Amino acid sequence: MAEKADLGSLWERYKEEVRKGGNAQALYREMIWPALLEKWRESPNVHPLRQDFAVSVHTLGTSPEATVLAILGTGADQVYVLHTEESRGFLPRLREETGKEVYPIAIGKSDVAAIYRQVREILERHGEKPVALDLTSGTKAMSAGLAAAGFFFQRFFPKVRVVYVDNEDYDPELRRPRAGTERLVILPNPHEALAEVDALFAKELYGKGEFAKAAAYFGGMVGKTGDHRYALYGMLAGMYHAWRALDAAEGVKQGRALLNRLSENAWLTHPLNGHRRTLEGQVALLEAVRRFLEVQDFGEKHGVWGLAQTLLLLSQEAVRTHPVLAALYAYRALELLLQERLALLGRRADDPKLSPEEEEATRQELIRLLPDTQKKEKVRVGPKLGLLDLLAFLRTKEDPEVAKLPLAEVRGLVGVLQARNDALLVHGFAVPTEKQVKELHKLVQVLLRDLEARSGVQGLSLEPVSLGF
Amino acid sequence: MAEKADLGSLWERYKEEVRKGGNAQALYREMIWPALLEKWRESPNVHPLRQDFAVSVHTLGTSPEATVLAILGTGADQVYVLHTEESRGFLPRLREETGKEVYPIAIGKSDVAAIYRQVREILERHGEKPVALDLTSGTKAMSAGLAAAGFFFQRFFPKVRVVYVDNEDYDPELRRPRAGTERLVILPNPHEALAEVDALFAKELYGKGEFAKAAAYFGGMVGKTGDHRYALYGMLAGMYHAWRALDAAEGVKQGRALLNRLSENAWLTHPLNGHRRTLEGQVALLEAVRRFLEVQDFGEKHGVWGLAQTLLLLSQEAVRTHPVLAALYAYRALELLLQERLALLGRRADDPKLSPEEEEATRQELIRLLPDTQKKEKVRVGPKLGLLDLLAFLRTKEDPEVAKLPLAEVRGLVGVLQARNDALLVHGFAVPTEKQVKELHKLVQVLLRDLEARSGVQGLSLEPVSLGF
Repeated sequence: MAEKADLGSLWERYKEEVRKGGNAQALYREMIWPALLEKWRESPNVHPLRQDFAVSVHTLGTSPEATVLAILGTGADQVYVLHTEESRGFLPRLREETGKEVYPIAIGKSDVAAIYRQVREILERHGEKPVALDLTSGTKAMSAGLAAAGFFFQRFFPKVRVVYVDNEDYDPELRRPRAGTERLVILPNPHEALAEVDALFAKELYGKGEFAKAAAYFGGMVGKTGDHRYALYGMLAGMYHAWRALDAAEGVKQGRALLNRLSENAWLTHPLNGHRRTLEGQVALLEAVRRFLEVQDFGEKHGVWGLAQTLLLLSQEAVRTHPVLAALYAYRALELLLQERLALLGRRADDPKLSPEEEEATRQELIRLLPDTQKKEKVRVGPKLGLLDLLAFLRTKEDPEVAKLPLAEVRGLVGVLQARNDALLVHGFAVPTEKQVKELHKLVQVLLRDLEARSGVQGLSLEPVSLGF
Repeated sequence: MAEKADLGSLWERYKEEVRKGGNAQALYREMIWPALLEKWRESPNVHPLRQDFAVSVHTLGTSPEATVLAILGTGADQVYVLHTEESRGFLPRLREETGKEVYPIAIGKSDVAAIYRQVREILERHGEKPVALDLTSGTKAMSAGLAAAGFFFQRFFPKVRVVYVDNEDYDPELRRPRAGTERLVILPNPHEALAEVDALFAKELYGKGEFAKAAAYFGGMVGKTGDHRYALYGMLAGMYHAWRALDAAEGVKQGRALLNRLSENAWLTHPLNGHRRTLEGQVALLEAVRRFLEVQDFGEKHGVWGLAQTLLLLSQEAVRTHPVLAALYAYRALELLLQERLALLGRRADDPKLSPEEEEATRQELIRLLPDTQKKEKVRVGPKLGLLDLLAFLRTKEDPEVAKLPLAEVRGLVGVLQARNDALLVHGFAVPTEKQVKELHKLVQVLLRDLEARSGVQGLSLEPVSLGF
């Protein structure tokens, strides 16, 4: 308190002298600065509280005093100063008044990119140490570049802080901050402090189909903001994640919870209520999938359609980057759709009960479909119908979709279908190609369209609804 | 040119008046400002070139002139001004001198988070329009906040630009920019302009195991920087991606290419050469996997080990988020490892050639292992050995690892193994639980350790090497 009172009375005397026509700048250096410097050397004023920085980086313009205070306030041993041609001359004064070895880095006064580059190099060099970036002095472009770099790089170097010397009281008569009211402010990172920013990240992840990560962001935002609006988005992302992980039961749970919340008075105006009908349709579809998986009855047309459509979607998403998985999804989709058609004939693939005539007809059809290179006398129909048997049997039964496929096209598919058991993730060693998987997609799409027409699944989209922000 | 000459001579006359003791501020407004304003109304000076902005946002401090120029320079119809208590009084002047309707938003002069919030709201409201954020006026904290927000939000709103009014010539005598040398600068986004930033993103993705995305970043950086160092990182990420996508051939291709480049003179000091031995080991392992997949000979111990280890890794990574996939990977790893042990006895799972005694012994062992609820009289051994058959047969043959597993433990596994054919992605409808998959992992790990000891695969890690930056 004694210090403060001292600076206060000094300030009044200083004003007196300036009013008398003294040179404000020279008088400040003579009357005020030594006391202020003394005070900061002993105990700098840092808001919200002092931190131990190992490294500090400062932009330097034509007001070195603020930078001196910032160097004393951050207290780092390693001090870098980004200076311009004009401010180079102040470097010795910084060294002298802070007693620190100052490392100079020359930059253009408007070169924001150079500041980024320099900051990044310094951060790389100092790894995990706490670093303060002080934007107090220098041009607007320099300060802006340093701040933007600092907030941004916190993502990669979490111990970086952006700081600046603020003043709590400005003397309008002298057009200067009143001495003694300066403080070094450590800024919170707005990217982290603001749920609004998380919302953007969550939206970006959601748009990329990374639903588990989006759900985690939304969940975190509820805690940060106390705003339960985000919990509903979390359920939405959770539903799509479970759906795509083929966990229909969990998807239904999340979807039902979401619909219930959207019906509550408090959430009638929630943006997701704008997609109410789509969401209800999707949850109903997921319920159909869950039911089908439970009862395993191919009469559950909606469930079969939903599951096959989901598998096709997953296969399409994976086809370029993970062909092994993509093939697996596509095989399973095709198998389901063929089994559904078999069920129309009152048969089951795992116990088809073929008559001797049917078995022979199927065998003959298989022989027609197989490439001539294969030993055809060995062909026989197993006790359970695999993909290829299914295809052959349905053709002998004049299945309206399967029988009308041109022979050449079916023969083209046969190799791909035979490869199933030899697929790396089933029992074999084969890695399918993107082209093979796309052949499967074509047939899956034909069968899906037919099932769609028969089951009355109309205009149902598996696409995630838009978030409304 | 006439304009410029005019401002030049006005400036000299203005200096004259100030030297005579006139009030610099008042004289500036009277002699200089009207001509400067006139010039900018007609043709603002914008660097690198004029752009059509629909919306502009300006921080406002105690120098409204620069903000007037910025408003005229951006030319937007919708103008938002972030002002403080102190600068509120300049709003009418902004309106009057620009002829635009200015929309005021009050903020605290050090409240960086508030600036973020306001900018985000404005950007949300104006969707896809081009928006200029002008940081010229206001406190350092305000400018820094606006710039950081602008650069950051460009990720989500690509038409946002950060701008400011720079001056090319400063008159030291008057401590003012020389009138006529002002220009509105549209800043490039340093996040985009700097390959250094991309390197951080690529590193982050690499660290998360998102190798395909990391490879894409590294690839783009070669073009941006002309620095082929990044091409080598691209090959590295490409190798790990192919590996985890089970495409051993592509992985070998990328890995070999990387090792070749690292041996070139130009790249002997590349940081990845610090991991040369690890990389050579990993590429050799991938080659062993590729060879094993080609020849399908279980004598290729390194290949079996590498493939099973890879499948285990993939299963562990997927177990929490994608249990269906995780189970599939684990089943296949276990099958491979059991088949390798079967091969030690000179047998193959797809044609085991069991003697009647062996078949009966295996059947009896299966009956011992199966839960009592199952109809045991129906148990029989198929012509090919499935997972459960393999386990039973190896136990009858006193396989040193499989036979010593406690009966209770094996019985616990049986349900999980039986579920394989019923798994949603194979032929059935079952969705395995995380717990079941972890049971499989345990057995896979036991068998991996034994194979490791027998095959001399030592200290080989599938972990991605560190990037060295």
